Amino acid sequence: MREVILAETERFLHEQIPLTRAMGVSVRSWDGQELWLSAPLQPNHNHLGTAFGGSLSALATLAGYSLLWLLLEDREAHIVIRDSSMRYRHPVRGDLQARCAPPSRPEWDAFHARFAHTGKARLTLRVEIVEADQVCVEFEGTFVALR
Amino acid sequence: MREVILAETERFLHEQIPLTRAMGVSVRSWDGQELWLSAPLQPNHNHLGTAFGGSLSALATLAGYSLLWLLLEDREAHIVIRDSSMRYRHPVRGDLQARCAPPSRPEWDAFHARFAHTGKARLTLRVEIVEADQVCVEFEGTFVALR
Repeated sequence: MREVILAETERFLHEQIPLTRAMGVSVRSWDGQELWLSAPLQPNHNHLGTAFGGSLSALATLAGYSLLWLLLEDREAHIVIRDSSMRYRHPVRGDLQARCAPPSRPEWDAFHARFAHTGKARLTLRVEIVEADQVCVEFEGTFVALR
Repeated sequence: MREVILAETERFLHEQIPLTRAMGVSVRSWDGQELWLSAPLQPNHNHLGTAFGGSLSALATLAGYSLLWLLLEDREAHIVIRDSSMRYRHPVRGDLQARCAPPSRPEWDAFHARFAHTGKARLTLRVEIVEADQVCVEFEGTFVALR
């Protein structure tokens, strides 16, 4: 069942956001604790042969977006990004691997109650881009869900 | 002369960072006061038909990067991004247009003196993505130049 949802999410991204095809984004796994997205280095490298900052930022944004989409389970909702910050700590030398964990239970409950009540709520999510257990990039983004 | 430099910068981006070709990034103009980069909406839209946040972030990063590259005039230098923040104020409904202005004279002088002295210096640049005179997205990024 989860494989079906992942394939559906990836198809949605590829159909609706053409840059995700150019990047080769893939929605890898979701076990309820962490969502993983990846993209090969080749279409996403920069002038130094490491991952391009714009690709890292796009992949992190997609990871946060996709996690909220999976958690919300409301296909009528629109999700947009409000603001984000990135910290590039180390260059990424291989394929791009992003992980995003759900917010804490109280954060989620507050978000969900507000969304149910007003049809609009915001949630801050953190994404890490990792390579060989090293956190190379930290992303924090605030997303808004609207019905 | 400036047209040659713009064409050279665009060729460098397209050759060295393949995602810029997929995005259709173009280095439009530079008059010493503002550098403009653009990209068509078609390859950069999201599921709502407006500009994808990842494309906006990538274009803003490239605008800051390119401006520093033009100002530095040191083809031996490497430029990397250290951190950035984005504020998405309004959706972008047409082509993506980014403008980046040089830092103040004292900021530039301090950066340049440090780079000349130590071979490494950082500079914060601001980029705006505008549509019909409205600022839709604000970006602030810190770049590091290394020799």
